[in-house]
Amino acid sequence: MVLKLHNFFRSSTSTRLRAALNLKGLAYDYVPYVLRRGDTRKPEYLAMNPQGLVPVLEREGGSYLTQSLAIIEWLEETHPTPALLPTDPDGRARVRALAYMIACEIHPLNNLRVLGYLADRFGASEDGQKEWFTHWVATTFDALETMLACHPRTGAFCHGDVPGLADICLYAQVWNNQRFGIATSAWPTIQRIFARIDTIPAFSNAAPPRQPDAA
Amino acid sequence: MVLKLHNFFRSSTSTRLRAALNLKGLAYDYVPYVLRRGDTRKPEYLAMNPQGLVPVLEREGGSYLTQSLAIIEWLEETHPTPALLPTDPDGRARVRALAYMIACEIHPLNNLRVLGYLADRFGASEDGQKEWFTHWVATTFDALETMLACHPRTGAFCHGDVPGLADICLYAQVWNNQRFGIATSAWPTIQRIFARIDTIPAFSNAAPPRQPDAA
Repeated sequence: MVLKLHNFFRSSTSTRLRAALNLKGLAYDYVPYVLRRGDTRKPEYLAMNPQGLVPVLEREGGSYLTQSLAIIEWLEETHPTPALLPTDPDGRARVRALAYMIACEIHPLNNLRVLGYLADRFGASEDGQKEWFTHWVATTFDALETMLACHPRTGAFCHGDVPGLADICLYAQVWNNQRFGIATSAWPTIQRIFARIDTIPAFSNAAPPRQPDAA
Repeated sequence: MVLKLHNFFRSSTSTRLRAALNLKGLAYDYVPYVLRRGDTRKPEYLAMNPQGLVPVLEREGGSYLTQSLAIIEWLEETHPTPALLPTDPDGRARVRALAYMIACEIHPLNNLRVLGYLADRFGASEDGQKEWFTHWVATTFDALETMLACHPRTGAFCHGDVPGLADICLYAQVWNNQRFGIATSAWPTIQRIFARIDTIPAFSNAAPPRQPDAA
Protein backbone atom coordinates (compact mmCIF):
# COMPACT_ATOMS: atom_id res chain seq x y z
CA MET A 1 0.00 0.00 0.00
CA VAL A 2 1.46 3.35 -1.05
CA LEU A 3 0.19 6.18 1.12
CA LYS A 4 0.60 9.90 0.59
CA LEU A 5 0.17 12.24 3.51
CA HIS A 6 -0.90 15.74 2.49
CA ASN A 7 -0.08 17.81 5.54
CA PHE A 8 1.73 20.67 7.25
CA PHE A 9 4.45 20.23 9.84
CA ARG A 10 2.92 22.50 12.48
CA SER A 11 -0.71 21.35 12.11
CA SER A 12 -1.67 19.36 15.16
CA THR A 13 -4.14 17.19 13.26
CA SER A 14 -1.25 16.35 10.92
CA THR A 15 0.94 15.49 13.92
CA ARG A 16 -1.76 13.10 15.15
CA LEU A 17 -1.93 11.29 11.86
CA ARG A 18 1.86 11.08 11.46
CA ALA A 19 2.11 9.52 14.94
CA ALA A 20 -0.67 7.03 14.16
CA LEU A 21 0.93 6.00 10.86
CA ASN A 22 4.31 5.62 12.58
CA LEU A 23 2.81 3.55 15.41
CA LYS A 24 1.16 1.27 12.85
CA GLY A 25 4.47 0.94 11.05
CA LEU A 26 3.08 2.34 7.81
CA ALA A 27 5.39 4.25 5.50
CA TYR A 28 4.07 7.29 3.64
CA ASP A 29 5.17 9.95 1.21
CA TYR A 30 5.22 13.34 2.86
CA VAL A 31 3.56 16.09 0.82
CA PRO A 32 3.85 19.50 2.53
CA TYR A 33 1.55 22.51 2.14
CA VAL A 34 1.98 26.07 3.36
CA LEU A 35 -1.31 27.03 4.95
CA ARG A 36 -0.63 30.77 5.23
CA ARG A 37 0.15 30.87 1.51
CA GLY A 38 -3.27 29.38 0.75
CA ASP A 39 -1.94 26.12 -0.69
CA THR A 40 -4.95 24.22 0.64
CA ARG A 41 -7.46 26.69 -0.83
CA LYS A 42 -6.42 25.94 -4.40
CA PRO A 43 -8.83 24.03 -6.66
CA GLU A 44 -6.58 20.97 -6.92
CA TYR A 45 -6.46 20.68 -3.13
CA LEU A 46 -10.19 21.31 -2.73
CA ALA A 47 -10.79 18.47 -5.18
CA MET A 48 -9.16 16.14 -2.61
CA ASN A 49 -10.80 17.78 0.37
CA PRO A 50 -13.56 20.38 -0.10
CA GLN A 51 -12.88 21.57 3.44
CA GLY A 52 -9.45 22.81 2.42
CA LEU A 53 -7.96 21.40 5.59
CA VAL A 54 -4.99 19.20 6.33
CA PRO A 55 -4.35 16.34 6.69
CA VAL A 56 -5.57 14.26 3.78
CA LEU A 57 -4.45 10.66 3.39
CA GLU A 58 -4.24 9.60 -0.24
CA ARG A 59 -4.36 5.91 -1.01
CA GLU A 60 -3.24 4.02 -4.05
CA GLY A 61 -5.64 4.64 -6.90
CA GLY A 62 -6.33 8.20 -5.83
CA SER A 63 -8.91 7.90 -3.08
CA TYR A 64 -8.74 10.33 -0.23
CA LEU A 65 -9.52 10.15 3.46
CA THR A 66 -10.16 13.29 5.49
CA GLN A 67 -10.57 14.26 9.16
CA SER A 68 -7.65 13.01 11.25
CA LEU A 69 -9.71 11.05 13.79
CA ALA A 70 -11.76 9.33 11.09
CA ILE A 71 -8.53 8.35 9.35
CA ILE A 72 -7.05 7.01 12.59
CA GLU A 73 -10.18 4.91 13.22
CA TRP A 74 -9.83 3.61 9.65
CA LEU A 75 -6.18 2.73 10.32
CA GLU A 76 -7.25 0.94 13.50
CA GLU A 77 -9.83 -1.11 11.60
CA THR A 78 -7.63 -1.97 8.63
CA HIS A 79 -4.31 -2.37 10.50
CA PRO A 80 -5.36 -3.52 13.97
CA THR A 81 -1.84 -4.17 15.35
CA PRO A 82 -0.55 -2.46 17.42
CA ALA A 83 -3.94 -1.36 18.74
CA LEU A 84 -4.60 2.31 19.45
CA LEU A 85 -7.78 1.54 21.38
CA PRO A 86 -8.27 -0.95 24.22
CA THR A 87 -10.42 -4.03 23.60
CA ASP A 88 -13.15 -3.44 26.21
CA PRO A 89 -16.01 -1.03 25.40
CA ASP A 90 -15.58 0.92 28.65
CA GLY A 91 -11.89 1.42 27.98
CA ARG A 92 -12.59 2.42 24.39
CA ALA A 93 -15.20 4.93 25.56
CA ARG A 94 -12.72 6.40 28.03
CA VAL A 95 -9.91 6.71 25.49
CA ARG A 96 -12.20 8.24 22.88
CA ALA A 97 -13.62 10.70 25.42
CA LEU A 98 -10.11 11.83 26.41
CA ALA A 99 -9.18 12.17 22.74
CA TYR A 100 -12.34 14.10 21.87
CA MET A 101 -11.82 16.49 24.78
CA ILE A 102 -8.78 17.71 22.88
CA ALA A 103 -10.08 17.18 19.37
CA CYS A 104 -13.51 18.73 19.96
CA GLU A 105 -12.89 21.32 22.69
CA ILE A 106 -9.39 22.69 22.15
CA HIS A 107 -8.10 22.23 18.66
CA PRO A 108 -11.12 23.55 16.70
CA LEU A 109 -11.01 26.80 18.65
CA ASN A 110 -7.33 27.38 18.26
CA ASN A 111 -6.41 26.63 14.71
CA LEU A 112 -5.02 29.13 12.27
CA ARG A 113 -8.24 30.01 10.49
CA VAL A 114 -10.04 30.72 13.76
CA LEU A 115 -7.27 32.94 15.09
CA GLY A 116 -7.23 34.72 11.75
CA TYR A 117 -10.98 35.33 11.83
CA LEU A 118 -10.74 36.54 15.41
CA ALA A 119 -8.11 39.07 14.34
CA ASP A 120 -9.92 40.19 11.19
CA ARG A 121 -13.43 40.42 12.56
CA PHE A 122 -12.93 41.21 16.24
CA GLY A 123 -9.58 42.97 16.08
CA ALA A 124 -7.82 40.43 18.28
CA SER A 125 -4.17 41.44 18.67
CA GLU A 126 -1.39 38.86 18.98
CA ASP A 127 -1.86 39.14 22.78
CA GLY A 128 -5.61 38.71 22.43
CA GLN A 129 -5.09 35.62 20.28
CA LYS A 130 -2.70 34.23 22.87
CA GLU A 131 -5.23 34.84 25.61
CA TRP A 132 -7.94 33.10 23.57
CA PHE A 133 -5.68 30.15 22.74
CA THR A 134 -4.50 29.81 26.35
CA HIS A 135 -8.03 30.08 27.74
CA TRP A 136 -9.32 27.11 25.74
CA VAL A 137 -6.24 25.00 26.38
CA ALA A 138 -6.47 25.64 30.13
CA THR A 139 -10.23 25.08 30.32
CA THR A 140 -9.90 21.59 28.89
CA PHE A 141 -6.47 20.69 30.25
CA ASP A 142 -7.69 21.46 33.80
CA ALA A 143 -10.47 18.89 33.34
CA LEU A 144 -8.20 16.47 31.50
CA GLU A 145 -5.65 16.65 34.32
CA THR A 146 -8.38 15.76 36.84
CA MET A 147 -9.66 12.90 34.69
CA LEU A 148 -6.17 11.49 34.22
CA ALA A 149 -4.89 12.04 37.76
CA CYS A 150 -7.92 10.51 39.47
CA HIS A 151 -8.63 7.49 37.30
CA PRO A 152 -7.38 3.99 38.16
CA ARG A 153 -6.85 3.09 34.52
CA THR A 154 -4.39 5.91 33.85
CA GLY A 155 -0.94 4.33 33.62
CA ALA A 156 2.33 5.28 32.01
CA PHE A 157 0.07 6.64 29.28
CA CYS A 158 -3.46 8.09 29.28
CA HIS A 159 -4.93 4.62 29.51
CA GLY A 160 -2.75 1.82 30.82
CA ASP A 161 0.81 1.21 29.74
CA VAL A 162 0.36 1.18 25.98
CA PRO A 163 0.16 4.41 23.95
CA GLY A 164 -3.08 4.98 22.06
CA LEU A 165 -5.53 7.43 20.55
CA ALA A 166 -5.71 9.71 23.60
CA ASP A 167 -1.93 9.93 23.78
CA ILE A 168 -1.82 10.82 20.09
CA CYS A 169 -4.15 13.77 20.66
CA LEU A 170 -2.39 14.82 23.87
CA TYR A 171 1.03 14.70 22.22
CA ALA A 172 -0.08 16.83 19.25
CA GLN A 173 -1.83 19.36 21.48
CA VAL A 174 1.16 19.86 23.80
CA TRP A 175 3.30 20.56 20.75
CA ASN A 176 0.66 22.94 19.46
CA ASN A 177 0.66 24.79 22.79
CA GLN A 178 4.27 25.75 22.24
CA ARG A 179 3.13 28.11 19.54
CA PHE A 180 2.09 30.49 22.32
CA GLY A 181 4.65 29.26 24.82
CA ILE A 182 2.17 27.51 27.10
CA ALA A 183 4.11 25.45 29.66
CA THR A 184 2.69 22.06 30.60
CA SER A 185 3.92 22.28 34.21
CA ALA A 186 0.51 23.42 35.46
CA TRP A 187 -0.78 19.93 34.60
CA PRO A 188 1.64 17.41 36.16
CA THR A 189 -0.04 14.24 34.91
CA ILE A 190 -0.27 15.58 31.37
CA GLN A 191 3.36 16.67 31.64
CA ARG A 192 4.45 13.24 32.88
CA ILE A 193 2.58 11.44 30.11
CA PHE A 194 3.86 13.79 27.41
CA ALA A 195 7.45 13.24 28.57
CA ARG A 196 6.95 9.47 28.40
CA ILE A 197 5.32 9.61 24.97
CA ASP A 198 8.14 11.76 23.67
CA THR A 199 10.65 8.95 24.32
CA ILE A 200 8.90 6.78 21.68
CA PRO A 201 10.34 7.27 18.19
CA ALA A 202 6.92 6.79 16.49
CA PHE A 203 5.83 9.94 18.30
CA SER A 204 9.01 11.99 18.38
CA ASN A 205 9.48 11.41 14.65
CA ALA A 206 5.98 12.85 14.15
CA ALA A 207 6.76 16.06 16.05
CA PRO A 208 6.59 19.29 14.08
CA PRO A 209 10.30 20.24 14.21
CA ARG A 210 11.32 16.89 12.72
CA GLN A 211 9.32 17.34 9.54
CA PRO A 212 10.90 18.21 6.19
CA ASP A 213 8.93 21.46 5.86
CA ALA A 214 9.79 22.70 9.37
CA ALA A 215 11.19 26.21 9.19
CA MET B 1 -30.00 -1.44 32.00
CA VAL B 2 -31.19 1.79 33.60
CA LEU B 3 -29.71 4.84 31.89
CA LYS B 4 -29.86 8.44 33.04
CA LEU B 5 -29.22 11.19 30.52
CA HIS B 6 -27.88 14.39 32.08
CA ASN B 7 -28.52 16.98 29.42
CA PHE B 8 -30.10 20.20 28.18
CA PHE B 9 -32.84 20.41 25.59
CA ARG B 10 -31.11 22.94 23.34
CA SER B 11 -27.60 21.47 23.49
CA SER B 12 -26.76 19.94 20.14
CA THR B 13 -24.47 17.30 21.67
CA SER B 14 -27.44 16.31 23.85
CA THR B 15 -29.67 16.12 20.77
CA ARG B 16 -27.14 13.77 19.15
CA LEU B 17 -27.14 11.44 22.11
CA ARG B 18 -30.93 11.46 22.49
CA ALA B 19 -31.28 10.50 18.83
CA ALA B 20 -28.71 7.71 19.16
CA LEU B 21 -30.40 6.29 22.26
CA ASN B 22 -33.77 6.45 20.53
CA LEU B 23 -32.43 4.76 17.40
CA LYS B 24 -30.96 1.98 19.54
CA GLY B 25 -34.32 1.61 21.29
CA LEU B 26 -32.84 2.37 24.71
CA ALA B 27 -35.02 4.06 27.31
CA TYR B 28 -33.47 6.65 29.61
CA ASP B 29 -34.40 8.94 32.44
CA TYR B 30 -34.17 12.56 31.37
CA VAL B 31 -32.32 14.81 33.82
CA PRO B 32 -32.33 18.45 32.68
CA TYR B 33 -29.82 21.19 33.54
CA VAL B 34 -29.97 24.91 32.91
CA LEU B 35 -26.59 25.86 31.47
CA ARG B 36 -26.99 29.63 31.81
CA ARG B 37 -27.78 29.18 35.50
CA GLY B 38 -24.49 27.34 35.99
CA ASP B 39 -26.08 23.99 36.87
CA THR B 40 -23.22 22.11 35.25
CA ARG B 41 -20.54 24.13 37.07
CA LYS B 42 -21.65 22.89 40.48
CA PRO B 43 -19.41 20.45 42.40
CA GLU B 44 -21.89 17.58 42.17
CA TYR B 45 -22.01 17.92 38.39
CA LEU B 46 -18.24 18.31 38.07
CA ALA B 47 -17.87 15.07 40.03
CA MET B 48 -19.65 13.32 37.14
CA ASN B 49 -17.87 15.29 34.43
CA PRO B 50 -14.92 17.56 35.30
CA GLN B 51 -15.51 19.36 32.00
CA GLY B 52 -18.83 20.68 33.24
CA LEU B 53 -20.39 19.91 29.88
CA VAL B 54 -23.52 18.10 28.81
CA PRO B 55 -24.38 15.38 28.00
CA VAL B 56 -23.34 12.78 30.54
CA LEU B 57 -24.73 9.26 30.35
CA GLU B 58 -25.04 7.64 33.76
CA ARG B 59 -25.21 3.89 33.93
CA GLU B 60 -26.48 1.62 36.64
CA GLY B 61 -24.08 1.59 39.55
CA GLY B 62 -23.10 5.21 39.04
CA SER B 63 -20.54 5.16 36.26
CA TYR B 64 -20.50 8.03 33.84
CA LEU B 65 -19.71 8.38 30.17
CA THR B 66 -18.81 11.76 28.65
CA GLN B 67 -18.30 13.26 25.18
CA SER B 68 -21.30 12.59 22.94
CA LEU B 69 -19.39 10.91 20.12
CA ALA B 70 -17.49 8.62 22.50
CA ILE B 71 -20.80 7.63 24.07
CA ILE B 72 -22.35 6.96 20.67
CA GLU B 73 -19.39 4.75 19.68
CA TRP B 74 -19.86 2.92 23.00
CA LEU B 75 -23.56 2.44 22.22
CA GLU B 76 -22.62 1.11 18.79
CA GLU B 77 -20.22 -1.42 20.31
CA THR B 78 -22.49 -2.56 23.12
CA HIS B 79 -25.82 -2.41 21.23
CA PRO B 80 -24.84 -3.06 17.61
CA THR B 81 -28.38 -3.20 16.19
CA PRO B 82 -29.53 -1.10 14.42
CA ALA B 83 -26.08 -0.06 13.27
CA LEU B 84 -25.13 3.63 13.15
CA LEU B 85 -22.00 2.93 11.11
CA PRO B 86 -21.67 0.90 7.90
CA THR B 87 -19.77 -2.39 8.02
CA ASP B 88 -16.99 -1.61 5.51
CA PRO B 89 -13.96 0.41 6.67
CA ASP B 90 -14.23 2.88 3.79
CA GLY B 91 -17.87 3.55 4.56
CA ARG B 92 -17.11 3.91 8.26
CA ALA B 93 -14.32 6.37 7.49
CA ARG B 94 -16.66 8.40 5.30
CA VAL B 95 -19.45 8.51 7.87
CA ARG B 96 -17.06 9.42 10.68
CA ALA B 97 -15.45 12.14 8.55
CA LEU B 98 -18.85 13.68 7.78
CA ALA B 99 -19.78 13.51 11.46
CA TYR B 100 -16.47 15.03 12.60
CA MET B 101 -16.81 17.88 10.12
CA ILE B 102 -19.75 19.00 12.22
CA ALA B 103 -18.51 17.82 15.59
CA CYS B 104 -14.97 19.18 15.23
CA GLU B 105 -15.37 22.20 12.96
CA ILE B 106 -18.76 23.75 13.72
CA HIS B 107 -20.11 22.84 17.12
CA PRO B 108 -17.00 23.58 19.24
CA LEU B 109 -16.84 27.11 17.84
CA ASN B 110 -20.48 27.89 18.34
CA ASN B 111 -21.48 26.65 21.74
CA LEU B 112 -22.70 28.83 24.55
CA ARG B 113 -19.43 29.17 26.43
CA VAL B 114 -17.55 30.24 23.31
CA LEU B 115 -20.14 32.85 22.37
CA GLY B 116 -20.05 34.07 25.97
CA TYR B 117 -16.27 34.39 25.95
CA LEU B 118 -16.39 36.17 22.61
CA ALA B 119 -18.81 38.69 24.09
CA ASP B 120 -16.94 39.15 27.37
CA ARG B 121 -13.41 39.32 26.03
CA PHE B 122 -13.83 40.74 22.53
CA GLY B 123 -17.03 42.69 23.01
CA ALA B 124 -19.00 40.70 20.44
CA SER B 125 -22.55 42.03 20.23
CA GLU B 126 -25.51 39.75 19.52
CA ASP B 127 -25.00 40.62 15.83
CA GLY B 128 -21.29 39.84 16.08
CA GLN B 129 -22.06 36.50 17.69
CA LYS B 130 -24.54 35.73 14.94
CA GLU B 131 -21.94 36.59 12.30
CA TRP B 132 -19.39 34.33 14.03
CA PHE B 133 -21.88 31.48 14.37
CA THR B 134 -23.07 31.80 10.77
CA HIS B 135 -19.52 32.01 9.42
CA TRP B 136 -18.47 28.68 10.90
CA VAL B 137 -21.70 26.95 9.95
CA ALA B 138 -21.41 28.17 6.35
CA THR B 139 -17.70 27.35 6.05
CA THR B 140 -18.29 23.71 6.91
CA PHE B 141 -21.79 23.31 5.44
CA ASP B 142 -20.48 24.54 2.06
CA ALA B 143 -17.91 21.73 2.07
CA LEU B 144 -20.37 19.22 3.52
CA GLU B 145 -22.88 20.03 0.78
CA THR B 146 -20.22 19.37 -1.86
CA MET B 147 -19.17 16.11 -0.22
CA LEU B 148 -22.77 14.92 0.04
CA ALA B 149 -23.98 16.13 -3.35
CA CYS B 150 -21.05 14.66 -5.31
CA HIS B 151 -20.59 11.29 -3.65
CA PRO B 152 -22.09 8.08 -5.06
CA ARG B 153 -22.73 6.64 -1.60
CA THR B 154 -24.97 9.49 -0.48
CA GLY B 155 -28.52 8.18 -0.48
CA ALA B 156 -31.72 9.10 1.30
CA PHE B 157 -29.38 9.84 4.18
CA CYS B 158 -25.76 10.99 4.40
CA HIS B 159 -24.56 7.49 3.60
CA GLY B 160 -26.93 5.13 1.89
CA ASP B 161 -30.53 4.61 2.86
CA VAL B 162 -30.11 3.95 6.58
CA PRO B 163 -29.67 6.77 9.08
CA GLY B 164 -26.43 6.78 11.03
CA LEU B 165 -23.80 8.76 12.89
CA ALA B 166 -23.41 11.49 10.25
CA ASP B 167 -27.17 12.02 10.13
CA ILE B 168 -27.24 12.32 13.91
CA CYS B 169 -24.68 15.13 13.81
CA LEU B 170 -26.35 16.82 10.83
CA TYR B 171 -29.77 16.70 12.46
CA ALA B 172 -28.52 18.22 15.72
CA GLN B 173 -26.57 20.94 13.90
CA VAL B 174 -29.48 22.04 11.71
CA TRP B 175 -31.59 22.40 14.86
CA ASN B 176 -28.78 24.33 16.50
CA ASN B 177 -28.63 26.69 13.51
CA GLN B 178 -32.16 27.82 14.24
CA ARG B 179 -30.85 29.63 17.28
CA PHE B 180 -29.62 32.33 14.90
CA GLY B 181 -32.24 31.72 12.26
CA ILE B 182 -29.90 30.17 9.70
CA ALA B 183 -31.97 28.71 6.87
CA THR B 184 -30.81 25.42 5.37
CA SER B 185 -31.99 26.31 1.86
CA ALA B 186 -28.50 27.37 0.78
CA TRP B 187 -27.48 23.70 1.06
CA PRO B 188 -30.08 21.66 -0.88
CA THR B 189 -28.65 18.20 -0.15
CA ILE B 190 -28.36 18.94 3.56
CA GLN B 191 -31.88 20.33 3.48
CA ARG B 192 -33.22 17.25 1.71
CA ILE B 193 -31.51 14.87 4.14
CA PHE B 194 -32.63 16.86 7.19
CA ALA B 195 -36.24 16.77 5.99
CA ARG B 196 -36.02 13.00 5.55
CA ILE B 197 -34.41 12.46 8.96
CA ASP B 198 -37.07 14.59 10.60
CA THR B 199 -39.77 12.11 9.52
CA ILE B 200 -38.22 9.43 11.76
CA PRO B 201 -39.63 9.46 15.30
CA ALA B 202 -36.27 8.45 16.88
CA PHE B 203 -34.93 11.76 15.57
CA SER B 204 -37.95 14.03 15.86
CA ASN B 205 -38.48 12.89 19.44
CA ALA B 206 -34.90 13.96 20.15
CA ALA B 207 -35.42 17.47 18.78
CA PRO B 208 -35.00 20.35 21.26
CA PRO B 209 -38.63 21.58 21.30
CA ARG B 210 -39.93 18.13 22.23
CA GLN B 211 -37.91 17.89 25.45
CA PRO B 212 -39.45 18.33 28.90
CA ASP B 213 -37.22 21.33 29.74
CA ALA B 214 -37.97 23.19 26.47
CA ALA B 215 -39.03 26.72 27.23
